Amino acid sequence: MSIALILNSARAEEWKLEINRYLPEIKVEIYPEIQNYSEVEFALCWKPDAGYYTHFPKLKVIQSGGAGIDHLFPKTIPSHIHTCRIVDPMLKSDMFEHVLTCLMHSMKNFSLYTIDKATRHWLPLVYNSIGQTRVTILGLGEIGGHVAERLVQLGFNVNGWSNSPKNLQGVVSFAGMEGLSRAVENTDFIVNVLPLTDATRGILNRNLFNLCPKGTVLLNVGRGEHLAEDDLLEAITSGQLAHAYLDVFHQEPLPQDHPFWNCGSIFITPHVASRTNIGSSVIQVVENYRRMVAGRPLLNEVSLEKGY
Amino acid sequence: MSIALILNSARAEEWKLEINRYLPEIKVEIYPEIQNYSEVEFALCWKPDAGYYTHFPKLKVIQSGGAGIDHLFPKTIPSHIHTCRIVDPMLKSDMFEHVLTCLMHSMKNFSLYTIDKATRHWLPLVYNSIGQTRVTILGLGEIGGHVAERLVQLGFNVNGWSNSPKNLQGVVSFAGMEGLSRAVENTDFIVNVLPLTDATRGILNRNLFNLCPKGTVLLNVGRGEHLAEDDLLEAITSGQLAHAYLDVFHQEPLPQDHPFWNCGSIFITPHVASRTNIGSSVIQVVENYRRMVAGRPLLNEVSLEKGY
Repeated sequence: MSIALILNSARAEEWKLEINRYLPEIKVEIYPEIQNYSEVEFALCWKPDAGYYTHFPKLKVIQSGGAGIDHLFPKTIPSHIHTCRIVDPMLKSDMFEHVLTCLMHSMKNFSLYTIDKATRHWLPLVYNSIGQTRVTILGLGEIGGHVAERLVQLGFNVNGWSNSPKNLQGVVSFAGMEGLSRAVENTDFIVNVLPLTDATRGILNRNLFNLCPKGTVLLNVGRGEHLAEDDLLEAITSGQLAHAYLDVFHQEPLPQDHPFWNCGSIFITPHVASRTNIGSSVIQVVENYRRMVAGRPLLNEVSLEKGY
Repeated sequence: MSIALILNSARAEEWKLEINRYLPEIKVEIYPEIQNYSEVEFALCWKPDAGYYTHFPKLKVIQSGGAGIDHLFPKTIPSHIHTCRIVDPMLKSDMFEHVLTCLMHSMKNFSLYTIDKATRHWLPLVYNSIGQTRVTILGLGEIGGHVAERLVQLGFNVNGWSNSPKNLQGVVSFAGMEGLSRAVENTDFIVNVLPLTDATRGILNRNLFNLCPKGTVLLNVGRGEHLAEDDLLEAITSGQLAHAYLDVFHQEPLPQDHPFWNCGSIFITPHVASRTNIGSSVIQVVENYRRMVAGRPLLNEVSLEKGY
């Protein structure tokens, strides 16, 4: 038996080293350099090419290298293969920290002060304080729930929205499509941390923006495909959205000629909100390998039907 | 009896309105439009001109319009006049929020992403997380103590330094000049919230910077006079300090030809970290007026000798 790493990223060697630290006796191979494809029962994957699993006739488990599984072509995976994702405590807290940074940056006018500095302009602006600020989190799963609860602890007024109702301390929660308009109708910020599924693709669109109060600020730290990019530009031009903080994009790196680069009201970060920490995530991968071998239930297995 | 407002700020009318809301029967006059100077026993002051109190022969109380009293020429005030400052809960929490904004902005590389956006450059950078980050707070009074405790609650590793030893939950505290080098020798950020006194004027200087690890980041939200400006430019040029967030300056507004405007490693905010909230502070002013009339001890009276 061996483990295959099918990783479209520069971190394959690092993963291999970490896995072997816990499973020194197991062969860990980096695709496509696989000695014997039919030995592989477990694959750790990140943004693989379509049909990647078809090369491995004995494959039992596809382990995502991150929190999402949308990049694994989930709807094409045969039902006898188990699919798991990583739920990393660092991933959650890093996401909270990135969201907090964007919120504070906006509330305290740091974009405007950056511009004022370049023009030697001294102009004190009214700032917003945490206790007056309303944030709506779209997505209350492992990550979104954590972000919501920590923002509540800091003193923000937090709404949450998810597919099914959630009960989180201090978070006013809404569910289902009929709850969406109520979740966003009284807010200052929309923060998207939804998983990418057929139901959520393009959910950040003109219709949603028009349900928000004029001047709402959008944070997208979910997936680029959640956002209707043209609708965002239109909403910023009209003033329906004041500005946006985007960490994810349809195409990454963001193409050189993309209009977002030139839009003064969009703050761009290059997909850095939270990065899977190999050191703290490898334990889950190793544990799932051991569980597969022992025939026990896997950690953080996802429903391919629901997509999360 | 009347109250004089000696306020070098555009907020005199607002203060007058708020004070009269609580004390409708008391005459509140805005200096220099005072009908009878010898009627004035209580003066609310913000950055008055030198000798301001000499005009009022019966003056008993000088109430600062903010948290500091350094702007009141404290060493010249006759000892029979009581001097008080405002301790506003909003002032404390606003200061915490501004400090948090600067810390996160630095830790998450938001200055660099701003530059990268202008040049359409996609380059993910390593970020720092709260749990790995060490912050040293200079000044553990009402404001500094609050900032320190809330940073601890968020998960930062916090050192504190003050004139006399303090006991704050989770804060590793140092005191006195001999404790200063130990407070800053292992840190990532220095945050100055000290009161301005003869002992602290110019404390942010070359000697202090050289005690910090190379690459430390400086936040000054105390007073401009705490900082030796030339020493800061030198420390940034040499790399001893990585960058600085400055909210206060020797001269405000910062002069057009000041070298800070042109230094890429200095983030400038125009004295907005925390602004006295008249609505929440007026109660302390009114209470002190009533106490003066009743001959009772005043709230938040300061020692003119110590300067805070």
